[in-house]
Amino acid sequence: MPSISLKGNAMPQSPIRKLVPFAEAAKKNGTKVFHLNIGQPDIKTPQVALDAVKNNAIEVLSYARSEGSEVYREKLAAYYNQHDIAVGANNIIATTGGSEALLFTIGSITDPGDEIIIPEPFYANYNGFSTASGVKVVPVISKIEDNFALPAIEEFEKLITPKTKAILICNPGNPTGYLYSQEEIEKLKQIVLKHDLFLIADEVYREFAYDGEKHNSVMALEGLENHAIMIDSVSKRYSMCGARIGCIVSKNNEFINTAIKFAQARLSPPTYALLASEAALDTPQSYFNEVIEEYQDRRNTLIEELNKIEGVRVANPKGAFYCIAELPVEDAEDFAQWILEKFNDRNETVMVAPAGGFYSTPGEGKNQVRIAYVLNKQDLIRCVEILKNALTAYKQ
Amino acid sequence: MPSISLKGNAMPQSPIRKLVPFAEAAKKNGTKVFHLNIGQPDIKTPQVALDAVKNNAIEVLSYARSEGSEVYREKLAAYYNQHDIAVGANNIIATTGGSEALLFTIGSITDPGDEIIIPEPFYANYNGFSTASGVKVVPVISKIEDNFALPAIEEFEKLITPKTKAILICNPGNPTGYLYSQEEIEKLKQIVLKHDLFLIADEVYREFAYDGEKHNSVMALEGLENHAIMIDSVSKRYSMCGARIGCIVSKNNEFINTAIKFAQARLSPPTYALLASEAALDTPQSYFNEVIEEYQDRRNTLIEELNKIEGVRVANPKGAFYCIAELPVEDAEDFAQWILEKFNDRNETVMVAPAGGFYSTPGEGKNQVRIAYVLNKQDLIRCVEILKNALTAYKQ
Ligand SMILES: Cc1ncc(COP(=O)(O)O)c(C=O)c1O
Ligand SMILES: Cc1ncc(COP(=O)(O)O)c(C=O)c1O
Repeated sequence: MPSISLKGNAMPQSPIRKLVPFAEAAKKNGTKVFHLNIGQPDIKTPQVALDAVKNNAIEVLSYARSEGSEVYREKLAAYYNQHDIAVGANNIIATTGGSEALLFTIGSITDPGDEIIIPEPFYANYNGFSTASGVKVVPVISKIEDNFALPAIEEFEKLITPKTKAILICNPGNPTGYLYSQEEIEKLKQIVLKHDLFLIADEVYREFAYDGEKHNSVMALEGLENHAIMIDSVSKRYSMCGARIGCIVSKNNEFINTAIKFAQARLSPPTYALLASEAALDTPQSYFNEVIEEYQDRRNTLIEELNKIEGVRVANPKGAFYCIAELPVEDAEDFAQWILEKFNDRNETVMVAPAGGFYSTPGEGKNQVRIAYVLNKQDLIRCVEILKNALTAYKQ
Repeated sequence: MPSISLKGNAMPQSPIRKLVPFAEAAKKNGTKVFHLNIGQPDIKTPQVALDAVKNNAIEVLSYARSEGSEVYREKLAAYYNQHDIAVGANNIIATTGGSEALLFTIGSITDPGDEIIIPEPFYANYNGFSTASGVKVVPVISKIEDNFALPAIEEFEKLITPKTKAILICNPGNPTGYLYSQEEIEKLKQIVLKHDLFLIADEVYREFAYDGEKHNSVMALEGLENHAIMIDSVSKRYSMCGARIGCIVSKNNEFINTAIKFAQARLSPPTYALLASEAALDTPQSYFNEVIEEYQDRRNTLIEELNKIEGVRVANPKGAFYCIAELPVEDAEDFAQWILEKFNDRNETVMVAPAGGFYSTPGEGKNQVRIAYVLNKQDLIRCVEILKNALTAYKQ
């Protein structure tokens, strides 16, 4: 039997995949499972986007241009311009989700054996894309006791080698909800300029900044034109994860021209999704205001309720829709499985993501879980109640 | 300025990309350009598929399951069962186009430095996916004078090294239109069993077999369960290239489980496109009968007309919708550019794909072009007339 590649064997499993059978078994047994484990919002997709697809007049569903149509990229550039990011259509490549944007970016700037420094905990699939490209993720630890602020510059510099090609941040962060300050972004600028690295910022949650705080994009930094690469996506912004449209944005032409070659090889982003994404750009500001308020409200509730549980420590997120909670257990993965397999509270239970999968340093995050506040407030309150009762029962 | 990766630099340009500016300039000057250069059919997408999207009731456009829904894969398995391929939902992963199916397959079975043997000329993007994975394409030449039949077994065996992981065929072939016989598929089976290799068959044109000939799938071969991998796609079958749904099919569980990890990293195939693809499986057989007849008719016309031009040699394609034509010129790329840049016939000209891009052996195919018969018969006749006049003018 022919053998699987080393790379294939090294590809990480999704951190929640192991729990899925337990969740399914619980449901089969009539237990209601609240899903706090995934970044799939329950928010309605903007009507303009849905309508654009429903009213389409396509007769031959053709390939789109590999980098996305001129019209779409112009319109997207206008959106960024409104957000103080001066880019044009030529600085943008439409991709199949932020996921593909990450894959093309890593492919364009790294060769097998190269390294990318990423503050951890980080979005678990950075591991997958890196492994697929033969690239080594070098983590730099950010701590729950610091609310997951950017580690000190020296911590980065200790890790830079001739193989280092980029620093990758997620802003606001999944799984931390951390929102980088202008000073932190400036610090990163100094490091990448000094060491001639790329600075990749995954800004797929860019609209989700709370408490009136401003999101600071790497694309808005002067002097970083050749270094900054932004990853973006319609998935979370317009609650249209299933569309599969994202983009790469950069002013480095050599990089863009390289990434376009990857885009050409796979021919086209999905055409219906481009229709929806183009229309979504007409979403009124009122939609965002409501959505932001909703998430902020949920976050307030969730954090408040979690803080009431003894032994739970939670970092207060300023953006995105996740938080990391430290639980009074030794092994959060075991606990997450146990609440699905062995526990229920009036026939209800919750599914959370063990945080170990968001770290690449072994053992880190072992007593943490990631909670996505993608459910309404009432459900969130109930979820925390279930968690609290489960923690009491689990310890016995 | 940080540097692009070696891999990024090595990524091939699409073979027609260089010609695009010349085609655009011609159009700006008022010349009508017939596109024989791409595999974008003009055939209408089945109405059931279009309607499924127009009538969708989605309110939150959510991620689909990474490997595609159980329902879709069950239905797809039933389609294959009807085509004498005994597979179930668990043997199938839905991907974002056949393109992604190729990428995941290569990622799952090769590491950087490994080799894949491919009969050339071959679909140009095999180069792109291989380069992206750090894999070396080892071509084995098939010849226009043999109508692009499978090279002799010895030709393959000469090329097999410890680094060889797979043989990749395209059946029916792009760009050759070649349809492999049962004997040829059996020959390949012997080679891969003897050397313990994977046999990847890109069958995205599987429905397009002409002259009543049968398509022979690698999935129908007994004893090859652990070796055979099929790549498929809705793009050409239902003329819905813009959907971006393809699939990987294999009975090798270890391989499938590995490829699923790649699928999980990118989260989800496009949801609207899955709706369309699921509905497309209800396309009545009459649709295919008409489409096959249409293509067969076009092929007959195209080949007949091309054969009338002195000095043109053309392999008679038995499937897909391409043919390779040898032209009485030294450099087909120069000619292809010249007919766009310097020539027109009553304000009309044609764009063809220089075949060099479909070979990886330098210099091969230099006097050949690929012609896609994706236009109606009347247009094809006119196109060949233009080509003929252009050849006369070019030689002077
Ligand atoms: C931080 C981050 N980046 C990228 C992605 C990829 O999203 P998509 O491919 O749907 O755009 C996600 C999805 O959850 C994410 O959380
Ligand atoms: C031989 C072959 N394989 C794969 C593909 C990829 O097609 P898609 O990604 O649209 O399924 C094509 C497209 O032209 C092709 O010709």
